[in-house]
Amino acid sequence: MSETLSVLKEKLATIHDLNAAAAVLGWDQHTYMPKGGIACRSRQMATLSQLAHEFFTRPEIGELLDRIEQSGTLEEGSEDWAYVRACRRDYNHAVKLPSEFVVEQSEAGSQSFDAWARCKPESNFEGFRPHLEKMVELSRREAEYLGYEEQIYDALLDKFEPALPTREVARVFGEVKDELVPFCKQLFEKKDLVEDKFFFTDWDRDKQWELTIQVLKDMGYDFDHGRQDESPHPFTTDFGIGDVRVTTRIHRDQFKAGLYGTIHEGGHALYEQNVNPAYDRGSLAGGTSLGIHESQSRLWENLIGRSRAYCRHYYPQVCKLFPHNMKDVSEIDYYRAINRVQPSLIRIEADEVTYSLHIFLRFELELALLSGDLKVKDLPGAWNEKVEAYLGIRPGNDAEGCMQDMHWSDGSFGYFPTYALGNLYGVSILNTVREKDPACLQAVEEGNFLPLKERLSDWVYQHGRRYTALELMERITGRGLEAGPFVSYIKAKYSGIYDL
Amino acid sequence: MSETLSVLKEKLATIHDLNAAAAVLGWDQHTYMPKGGIACRSRQMATLSQLAHEFFTRPEIGELLDRIEQSGTLEEGSEDWAYVRACRRDYNHAVKLPSEFVVEQSEAGSQSFDAWARCKPESNFEGFRPHLEKMVELSRREAEYLGYEEQIYDALLDKFEPALPTREVARVFGEVKDELVPFCKQLFEKKDLVEDKFFFTDWDRDKQWELTIQVLKDMGYDFDHGRQDESPHPFTTDFGIGDVRVTTRIHRDQFKAGLYGTIHEGGHALYEQNVNPAYDRGSLAGGTSLGIHESQSRLWENLIGRSRAYCRHYYPQVCKLFPHNMKDVSEIDYYRAINRVQPSLIRIEADEVTYSLHIFLRFELELALLSGDLKVKDLPGAWNEKVEAYLGIRPGNDAEGCMQDMHWSDGSFGYFPTYALGNLYGVSILNTVREKDPACLQAVEEGNFLPLKERLSDWVYQHGRRYTALELMERITGRGLEAGPFVSYIKAKYSGIYDL
Repeated sequence: MSETLSVLKEKLATIHDLNAAAAVLGWDQHTYMPKGGIACRSRQMATLSQLAHEFFTRPEIGELLDRIEQSGTLEEGSEDWAYVRACRRDYNHAVKLPSEFVVEQSEAGSQSFDAWARCKPESNFEGFRPHLEKMVELSRREAEYLGYEEQIYDALLDKFEPALPTREVARVFGEVKDELVPFCKQLFEKKDLVEDKFFFTDWDRDKQWELTIQVLKDMGYDFDHGRQDESPHPFTTDFGIGDVRVTTRIHRDQFKAGLYGTIHEGGHALYEQNVNPAYDRGSLAGGTSLGIHESQSRLWENLIGRSRAYCRHYYPQVCKLFPHNMKDVSEIDYYRAINRVQPSLIRIEADEVTYSLHIFLRFELELALLSGDLKVKDLPGAWNEKVEAYLGIRPGNDAEGCMQDMHWSDGSFGYFPTYALGNLYGVSILNTVREKDPACLQAVEEGNFLPLKERLSDWVYQHGRRYTALELMERITGRGLEAGPFVSYIKAKYSGIYDL
Repeated sequence: MSETLSVLKEKLATIHDLNAAAAVLGWDQHTYMPKGGIACRSRQMATLSQLAHEFFTRPEIGELLDRIEQSGTLEEGSEDWAYVRACRRDYNHAVKLPSEFVVEQSEAGSQSFDAWARCKPESNFEGFRPHLEKMVELSRREAEYLGYEEQIYDALLDKFEPALPTREVARVFGEVKDELVPFCKQLFEKKDLVEDKFFFTDWDRDKQWELTIQVLKDMGYDFDHGRQDESPHPFTTDFGIGDVRVTTRIHRDQFKAGLYGTIHEGGHALYEQNVNPAYDRGSLAGGTSLGIHESQSRLWENLIGRSRAYCRHYYPQVCKLFPHNMKDVSEIDYYRAINRVQPSLIRIEADEVTYSLHIFLRFELELALLSGDLKVKDLPGAWNEKVEAYLGIRPGNDAEGCMQDMHWSDGSFGYFPTYALGNLYGVSILNTVREKDPACLQAVEEGNFLPLKERLSDWVYQHGRRYTALELMERITGRGLEAGPFVSYIKAKYSGIYDL
């Protein structure tokens, strides 16, 4: 390794430590921090991020990158070459935004988030509207700073899902939507076929917790290098490859949210725990894109966690832990209830089938807002029309309509698509596992999830950010982003459950 | 406030944030961190401390201090004047040590600590000896860098107890010892008068926890700005005045350690929680010296927590929580058992009376090691002789002799005296409360500890580092460091318990 590259890596390691420290502070804030700690915590977080940003955007980082790139000594495709590529990407992104702009956007984002949190309970879109208009305008300016090839949205999508053009996403989402909307209509007509009322009774908290710990262990989550705690919203965070933590939220009045929140975060955590340890503290640590990350959380949550085999495997344990709740529930009823489909207004409560529709409508509205085709003042109406067109129901107010998510309030345009991309990537990856390593899925049938974890570590997790999302998909599946596998999977599974 | 002072305060606030972040990481490491997280955690801690040290020792800090001091605009005794005095003290200390020396000392300290941890279980002093010799030599060099007026130990003591000469400590410790050694002899002769076997039975973990939370609340510890968790060794830490946390350790096979560990840390925490909020993120935040800090933990733990009134107040609750353990224990037996005195080899297990003797022997041996009067190779023998002279018993090996504490292994010479100073300061302060605000102690008699907390906040806690230890004692008691009040307190209390 050249001396210049060593110098660069050493500098970045320090910056990674600062970001990791900020992550510890963030974890503590959402798990154990007493409420009176927030004022000093906010300042500490701000200091750490400012220092990390300041260190990273110093001209010396750019000069080191220039020298390494110009030396021509790195073999294309090698780990060091990938390291420099990832670092260059982050660096260019960080320095393209003037620091005054970053401050303006961050302050406006805080105010807008506060306004959203204040206005949402009263479904007061008019109170929130000026803030949202400001955030749209700032995102347009951000996109101009960042630059794009075809359309303004490319620049924003690229922040979360690098190197994937909007055009391509729109094409594939369109294909899925054209199949999914009519299929959902068929399902909704038979929705009374599946019953899940028993999930919304009194479920013992400690036994739910015990079950979540068990499923994490069974997935191969390493408790020597992580832990689970409770927080208001489940999340995964890491302070390096050696310490990757998940949180969940146990509800006493329902069963599915706690368990499937854990499995979802467990999928994210398996990714982070199994990145090549040599990548720690460097530009190749972490997942390669939010879409690929989400493919792993959703693969474990939905493709595995809501599969017949998984439900069959845990059914006896669920019955043993919760004999009263499960008194009259057969194994097939349990499986069907886990997979109940219904039209719903709220994204985070949506099932595996309708979830992507919630994303598509957000993606389409984001595109229109950013291009200027849709004015913010017309957003509520446009939202409600799309919900009705895709799901056949209509929000009664904006709190359960276009104000339900926090993402837009702080200007995170370009983020939503990664959720649906995860669904598509996940099915493609699992299909390839089925084809090339069927023993892996045979083991799943028998309740042994570790071979699958090893397979995914080998194909996905260990590589960290070495390959882009599309490079990784190409290596694994030999193909790019596709609609077909996901649509086929959904149709096959749910035609079975709903006797179509 | 002058602009120069504002600039200085702003720079120090950033450094405080880095130190606070390191404290969060430290708290997590001792409470919740999975064992596999240690490697990345150590690097993160090192990065934060290096940055904090680097920022603080930049010449610009010294130049700002010079300009403020030379401007002559600060009124002596004002808060800003005290801020600059405290900052100057820290700065001079930080810059006096060459950074190569700091690295050498830190690395040698780590190796020496490892050697101690390895050799102690086998009581292998010879294996540890070369490391301890190195640490003594490094401390002597450190003292030369730091400078001192009378003797080498002054420089080391000053790190933990600023502005208190060794000579003065030696004089007062000597006075206490001359009274305490013969008094202990009298007590030991009657040691069978007090029985505490019932404390070493099976004590319910959750009920012990419930009791520790209750006593913290009763002391006025603010759970909106703090929390208690479990850790292998109890400690107090703070991430700013708004977030001050304690830990304790609950033992299932004994009662006193958990409860009194909590009260001790609660005393430290009351200090930190009640510092003037305007001092947050600045040089006046925190306690003024380790001795004064320890005076508060020990005042709450011993002078209040082991008092007749305290035991009387909690006796019914202890009986209710632990009916089996307390079956045949009367209130007076409970009080006497809480205060059982016995000669013991291990400092951290010592009672209120013998504890200071454990400190005096360490102080005397530290002085001799640093002055060169005692060679490291002769330490075990010297230790055992002193233990025998003061306590009438002799260690069977060095693990329960001169290797029992970790302090010397990383070169923390000058630290031990602050424990005994805390005992002396604490009695003097509480005597002044009794004299000037007797209602406070009347409230304690009735089980109401909040007036005392308010009194101590007013006299001690709110001032943070504004006054030195001796200035603070002078303000409160009108006197300096004294042996008399502590000796009288001990003799009166324990003559009563042991019918002398």
